[in-house]
Amino acid sequence: MSQKEEVLRRLRRIEGQVRGLQRMVEEDTYCVDVLVQIAAARAALKSVGMTILRGHVNSCVVRAIREDHGEPAIEELVDVIKRFTD
Amino acid sequence: MSQKEEVLRRLRRIEGQVRGLQRMVEEDTYCVDVLVQIAAARAALKSVGMTILRGHVNSCVVRAIREDHGEPAIEELVDVIKRFTD
Amino acid sequence: MSQKEEVLRRLRRIEGQVRGLQRMVEEDTYCVDVLVQIAAARAALKSVGMTILRGHVNSCVVRAIREDHGEPAIEELVDVIKRFTD
Amino acid sequence: MSQKEEVLRRLRRIEGQVRGLQRMVEEDTYCVDVLVQIAAARAALKSVGMTILRGHVNSCVVRAIREDHGEPAIEELVDVIKRFTD
Repeated sequence: MSQKEEVLRRLRRIEGQVRGLQRMVEEDTYCVDVLVQIAAARAALKSVGMTILRGHVNSCVVRAIREDHGEPAIEELVDVIKRFTD
Repeated sequence: MSQKEEVLRRLRRIEGQVRGLQRMVEEDTYCVDVLVQIAAARAALKSVGMTILRGHVNSCVVRAIREDHGEPAIEELVDVIKRFTD
Repeated sequence: MSQKEEVLRRLRRIEGQVRGLQRMVEEDTYCVDVLVQIAAARAALKSVGMTILRGHVNSCVVRAIREDHGEPAIEELVDVIKRFTD
Repeated sequence: MSQKEEVLRRLRRIEGQVRGLQRMVEEDTYCVDVLVQIAAARAALKSVGMTILRGHVNSCVVRAIREDHGEPAIEELVDVIKRFTD
């Protein structure tokens, strides 16, 4: 499976988790169980983000550095990492 | 709108964001734009989680404390907060 | 050991970690090792924060709820949890 | 001021914040105020970490990529970013 397919597969699973969350809320599931599932969906999003980030550095950032215009690519990278740590 | 409806409305929007992410990946959108959207979906999940958490404290935890069995409810609360901060 | 002493002990250890970080930077330690230590100090701060949070809920928030003015205490609690998850 | 001096200056300020936290706990400051200060110290650590991370990518990672052994450097980078987002 290519990385793109792998990422899509994980995003579909996350979509399923979010739909599952709606069902839980509709059926008045105990709040703490809903919160645990929200935390799980967030962790899954973070994990797929890390996969995309690794791919991004390995392709775009590496290329930018090799072609001697790495600086804006690195600024952009640090900026997106900051968003991820919020 | 009740809090339940409001939460459901936000979860449906998050589901839409996750579907939008799949489209972005399928169409080979620039990785950094995908990452920014992932961070946005995570922030939206955190925000809806905070709304549910507030509701949970205001109902279940308050009731548990009033009925003098607050301790396990508070342990559970701190545990779920920990998951959220990961 | 009381909870207060336990918290102080952990804060003193964190102070030591932050001083250790300064030494590492002064001695030009490899950046990734510095970053790993920064992450460790942040995790330690979060952990001591969770201990204080549990104590806060168990004393102040429980009392506020019992004295029927729980609402502002809960708003404040949710607000501080939000800061922690940033 | 060099980046190293700037980082040291910020770490010393964080050390001061952690000492301030000990004073607050010793003087039984209201828990929520302590928690707000802990969140502030964590944010300051994250911020200095981002500065070090940027410097690390700009020097070590760029050099590794130019000398054609970028892969382990990028793995290490993604690993440390993961720790930071916990």
